[in-house]
Amino acid sequence: MPETKTEKKLSPWQRKIHEIIFEADTPAGKWFDIILILFIGLSVIAVMMDSVQSLKAKYSDLLFFAEWLFTILFTIEYILRLISVTKPKLYALSFYGIVDLLAILPTYISLIYAGGHFLVVIRLLRILRVFRVLKLMQYVSESKVLAQALKASRRKITIFIFVVLTLVTILGSLMYLIEGEENGFTSIPKSIYWAIVTLTTVGYGDITPQTMVGQFVSVIIMLLGYGIIAVPTGIVTVEMSNTLKSKNKGKEGIRACRGCGKDTHDEDAKYCKYCGKELL
Amino acid sequence: MPETKTEKKLSPWQRKIHEIIFEADTPAGKWFDIILILFIGLSVIAVMMDSVQSLKAKYSDLLFFAEWLFTILFTIEYILRLISVTKPKLYALSFYGIVDLLAILPTYISLIYAGGHFLVVIRLLRILRVFRVLKLMQYVSESKVLAQALKASRRKITIFIFVVLTLVTILGSLMYLIEGEENGFTSIPKSIYWAIVTLTTVGYGDITPQTMVGQFVSVIIMLLGYGIIAVPTGIVTVEMSNTLKSKNKGKEGIRACRGCGKDTHDEDAKYCKYCGKELL
Amino acid sequence: MPETKTEKKLSPWQRKIHEIIFEADTPAGKWFDIILILFIGLSVIAVMMDSVQSLKAKYSDLLFFAEWLFTILFTIEYILRLISVTKPKLYALSFYGIVDLLAILPTYISLIYAGGHFLVVIRLLRILRVFRVLKLMQYVSESKVLAQALKASRRKITIFIFVVLTLVTILGSLMYLIEGEENGFTSIPKSIYWAIVTLTTVGYGDITPQTMVGQFVSVIIMLLGYGIIAVPTGIVTVEMSNTLKSKNKGKEGIRACRGCGKDTHDEDAKYCKYCGKELL
Amino acid sequence: MPETKTEKKLSPWQRKIHEIIFEADTPAGKWFDIILILFIGLSVIAVMMDSVQSLKAKYSDLLFFAEWLFTILFTIEYILRLISVTKPKLYALSFYGIVDLLAILPTYISLIYAGGHFLVVIRLLRILRVFRVLKLMQYVSESKVLAQALKASRRKITIFIFVVLTLVTILGSLMYLIEGEENGFTSIPKSIYWAIVTLTTVGYGDITPQTMVGQFVSVIIMLLGYGIIAVPTGIVTVEMSNTLKSKNKGKEGIRACRGCGKDTHDEDAKYCKYCGKELL
Repeated sequence: MPETKTEKKLSPWQRKIHEIIFEADTPAGKWFDIILILFIGLSVIAVMMDSVQSLKAKYSDLLFFAEWLFTILFTIEYILRLISVTKPKLYALSFYGIVDLLAILPTYISLIYAGGHFLVVIRLLRILRVFRVLKLMQYVSESKVLAQALKASRRKITIFIFVVLTLVTILGSLMYLIEGEENGFTSIPKSIYWAIVTLTTVGYGDITPQTMVGQFVSVIIMLLGYGIIAVPTGIVTVEMSNTLKSKNKGKEGIRACRGCGKDTHDEDAKYCKYCGKELL
Repeated sequence: MPETKTEKKLSPWQRKIHEIIFEADTPAGKWFDIILILFIGLSVIAVMMDSVQSLKAKYSDLLFFAEWLFTILFTIEYILRLISVTKPKLYALSFYGIVDLLAILPTYISLIYAGGHFLVVIRLLRILRVFRVLKLMQYVSESKVLAQALKASRRKITIFIFVVLTLVTILGSLMYLIEGEENGFTSIPKSIYWAIVTLTTVGYGDITPQTMVGQFVSVIIMLLGYGIIAVPTGIVTVEMSNTLKSKNKGKEGIRACRGCGKDTHDEDAKYCKYCGKELL
Repeated sequence: MPETKTEKKLSPWQRKIHEIIFEADTPAGKWFDIILILFIGLSVIAVMMDSVQSLKAKYSDLLFFAEWLFTILFTIEYILRLISVTKPKLYALSFYGIVDLLAILPTYISLIYAGGHFLVVIRLLRILRVFRVLKLMQYVSESKVLAQALKASRRKITIFIFVVLTLVTILGSLMYLIEGEENGFTSIPKSIYWAIVTLTTVGYGDITPQTMVGQFVSVIIMLLGYGIIAVPTGIVTVEMSNTLKSKNKGKEGIRACRGCGKDTHDEDAKYCKYCGKELL
Repeated sequence: MPETKTEKKLSPWQRKIHEIIFEADTPAGKWFDIILILFIGLSVIAVMMDSVQSLKAKYSDLLFFAEWLFTILFTIEYILRLISVTKPKLYALSFYGIVDLLAILPTYISLIYAGGHFLVVIRLLRILRVFRVLKLMQYVSESKVLAQALKASRRKITIFIFVVLTLVTILGSLMYLIEGEENGFTSIPKSIYWAIVTLTTVGYGDITPQTMVGQFVSVIIMLLGYGIIAVPTGIVTVEMSNTLKSKNKGKEGIRACRGCGKDTHDEDAKYCKYCGKELL
């Protein structure tokens, strides 16, 4: 996109920073991404360790140091991101911009308000940035196939979830009437929760039917869940197959035969298979 | 359908009401549907809240008011539906007609007989009306593909359920003999219930095999269940793929035969397969 | 098969009985099958009820009567089957012959030896006869497609089960070393049982990992199980798709064009789509 | 591969041993493999029995004898393998070479250090050798199809696991905040463990959400898990279908071109697509 006059001009060193931080195709950009993802990974591990009592007691100094180290590093990164874009406001209000800010705020808040430290857990959201790895590892085309197949089946899956939610609401309420509060089905929302646990074949076992009628209804829910899992699977499989086919078709049909005009040649074909003319 | 003479004539305002309540294509009909679904949603939430002890204690007045509000509104809707159709009896005895009646009765019954209030839960069945939303959102063709695929695989799925039920009956009885009442397998129906819980991979854990032989049989049931889930999935996937293909075939018919006018020709066809005329 | 001389000749009434009992195409044979399946169903329900303590106490007389009634009826059927075939020995030693005998023996044994009554549960195996219903309901072609698809994927599924069993043996043993007897993994066979419960996503929860390392290994088993369920599903779907295609192909390719000889015409084609010649 | 001069020459009896132990095509090699797999199976059963307290107490002498018998036999086999290859070092450092050594070491170690006996469990890894059975049973082509399909879907499955791991990390951390330590979600790693247990529909039930908000998030995880299982299934199904198709294509190559000799022509090809020569 050509820069419009309302945008502020970036100085050469701002351009350089932008190239390193935002792009992934240049060597510097690649290295920045790899190091950033490493740091995000380490900060995530630090947050996780901090939540385990035994580890927290043992390594409290190290974890305290790590938290501040990552906070300062991520603050520098955040500031560099802000000053290297032409529209800092747009970045600051974008999804990643907000996540980046939320990832550093809690530690500063904890200086004033003790309980704030707790929110450092938000830093975990930064791991969403690891999806850049896909770009680095050239897995882009593969993830596009998946995303396209899911997008194509969006409408059908919406209907499916619609039907499932209606089913569990009715069946859950039915179980509330059958089993009642003395058997753990203390309310309709809880019964619906149980119905979803059963239909999706998760089956925690924290609530289980005790009466014969209840067990009979459960069995129907289980068989339903066991059967209708075929529906999303069928949808995604068919769409994925279509996505791959149309992708392959596009690849093949670029060479039209000068003899007979047909253009459905395999990629390795040198001569037209319909009239024998050499292909270019 | 042309009106027969035995049908009573609808006056203009009855026609108007009919258009609003029963049709979804006119602006008025659309708005009515949206508001109705909203009200059904709210009444469902009210019934759910009423079943949660803590919420019931807190908002008992509000919930009591909501119950009567929705009952009166749904009563008016029910009466309007009755007077705006040419055959009110047919509507009253239809599935939705019965559900609509059952949704308002419990509140009135609770005036005479205190326990009746409990039955207001039936109102949840009204959420089935939300399937009109699909029509509103033009998701009809997508839901037809799903319905058609399921219809085409109906027979194969019947056989599958047949085999599964036979399997669990035999394996459940076997487990009753192996484990016995001291390990929770107190009767054959309960053992069959357990076998279904295991085969569908729900696995509550309320009943679990304790003996070595029992665990061995369980393992076989699990592997069976893990394997045969492939069968309904395979059926639905293949049928869904066929449904989509035949639907697409109809779409591709861009070449209409000049001889007979039919347009469902294969892509590589040179001559009309119905009348023999050359295709352009 | 033409009768050999060593076979005994069937008298007309024997033929009549054979037709009724063994064939399902004649009206009499159909009725016999329907009544037999009904009786098997009732006898299965009686056995089930007998295993439920509360029902047994209440209806002990009825159940005792039912058991003897079905035993006598099935005994008569067994004798009729024996005398209406040319090779009674072959029938007696066939799978269904043995099941039919085992279904009546326990009641007689209970006259001499009290505990024998317990074995009446074997009668449940008779429900396998309900698969004749498929024949009655003309579901044969559908069940053939399923059977053929499963047969074609037999070898691949064998390999799959092979890999799964190797996986659970190694992972189960690993968990026995990690968790040890104090956490419920009391022996290697039990750990393997747990690994299968986890891999197949049944997840009873009777044994659960307690250590961090154990939970980490469990997570790997779960993700494995969640992922490799795709393998049998993929196998069956592909084979089912192939079975249906080759079935359809067989149907289509019966009309060769007199003009160009091609025989891949759609069922509704009247003219050859390659040369325009009328098809017969 | 022709022998290079740096390799040591094998004497005739070494060749003979090599043929028996390493090859599976000769009768002697086949028999050796069958017997070896039988012995591995028996040694695995012995290790399993040894871990069951009741069996260990009963058959301690037999199990002690079996352990030493298999150790000595496997030691002889290991030595024979070493002396019958031209590069013993290469074998000793190969995966199977290390497994073979680890399978015999623990018993010898237990002579010096009592606790070492415990490690005999490593012997279980030898069951990986049973995959030779596939070769013996000519299941090779089937397992190649499976392996190829999995290999082709490798990248897509990597992305899928990537997304799943990101999801469970975020959702698990969220649940740690919602439910807290008093409801069993004692740390973030444990909450992630719970999220995987739920997403994969295993559902042990050792940790379950207690608060309403927690149950609501659980329900979302369950529906997600129930839905996205369609993704690996779709991937594997499509790849398996492609693998089989391209395999069949290769099979159809019965028409070799008289010009260039290539035989991978489509069924409807009239001219060789590699050199333009007319096909017969």
